[in-house]
Amino acid sequence: MRVPGLPRRPTSSFTASSFTASSVDGFIADPEDSLSWLLTRDVDVHGPMGYQAFLDQSVGALAMGSTTYRWILGHELAGGPSRDWPYALPTWVFSTQELPRAQGDLRVVRGDVAAHHPDMLAAAGDRGVWVVGGGELAGQFADAGLLDELWVQWAPVALGAGAPLLPRRVELRLEDVVRNGDFACARYTVLPPVAGAQP
Amino acid sequence: MRVPGLPRRPTSSFTASSFTASSVDGFIADPEDSLSWLLTRDVDVHGPMGYQAFLDQSVGALAMGSTTYRWILGHELAGGPSRDWPYALPTWVFSTQELPRAQGDLRVVRGDVAAHHPDMLAAAGDRGVWVVGGGELAGQFADAGLLDELWVQWAPVALGAGAPLLPRRVELRLEDVVRNGDFACARYTVLPPVAGAQP
Repeated sequence: MRVPGLPRRPTSSFTASSFTASSVDGFIADPEDSLSWLLTRDVDVHGPMGYQAFLDQSVGALAMGSTTYRWILGHELAGGPSRDWPYALPTWVFSTQELPRAQGDLRVVRGDVAAHHPDMLAAAGDRGVWVVGGGELAGQFADAGLLDELWVQWAPVALGAGAPLLPRRVELRLEDVVRNGDFACARYTVLPPVAGAQP
Repeated sequence: MRVPGLPRRPTSSFTASSFTASSVDGFIADPEDSLSWLLTRDVDVHGPMGYQAFLDQSVGALAMGSTTYRWILGHELAGGPSRDWPYALPTWVFSTQELPRAQGDLRVVRGDVAAHHPDMLAAAGDRGVWVVGGGELAGQFADAGLLDELWVQWAPVALGAGAPLLPRRVELRLEDVVRNGDFACARYTVLPPVAGAQP
């Protein structure tokens, strides 16, 4: 079922989306890689620009860096004996490190995101790739011209320091703005890099 | 005349507001202190959460740092012989540098913002102080418990680097979210620091 209000786009043009919470000053994690500033906030995941609708409608595969992967393992699997990966969707972890393994449709890969993108898209079926985190990985997708959407959910806090949202110069087009609980939410189309533009 | 939709608050509780444009990743100027990424965007200054309504309704005095002051001098006064300061409102420039002077209700001061705040409030009459920029000065107002509002207008661009929006950990309460042209706009109440909280 299609969720009302979410854009439908031709599969052929769909590449990858970054859907991320951020502090108002553009950090996706605090200096200790903690999300304690985020997880106490009020949000309706089924509400406007909510996570669940985004996931159900748009996402067929996941991409993440090692920090995000370790965070999910540490929090979703804490204390559990099974070490099952919590996502049913096929997941690519981009890392040059050795990482603890969980049971699931999960692969740790190295190198250029563009080299792995065809496999991700094929696995995603008629949906796209969600760049779960972090910001540097989203930047690598943008560098390769493979990031087509950015969804930001700003939590009501300034952090002053931490992991950056998108450490690149990237032009965007605002598509929609909405409040969901404690969050100011915006959805952007990522515009292609201008040839010869200053990075 | 009161502008509809803007909050009215008792003068006694009003301290200072930061009203600022930002990139989506929390920078108020790019690494060259340029606003070229900002000034080309579409906005209605008389529209929702627009600059003109904020200025007309809420602001009785201006506070800024030396970078903001030099930027205004360089852009508003470029080529003009009069060197008139473009704002009619009494203005405090916080700087330890020697600065070029313009004609107007303008003073360059040093030291703690709290020491100058009574003078600013008295000059502001029944309105408040607008912390025009930059982020560090807004942070000093927040440190002193004198920042009561943050208005952010996010431009549709990630910069990746530049001058930070608010280089502090500051808790906020989201009051309102709106779109104005190319901008996602949010208004926050600044919450008082929690005693013993991690900075």
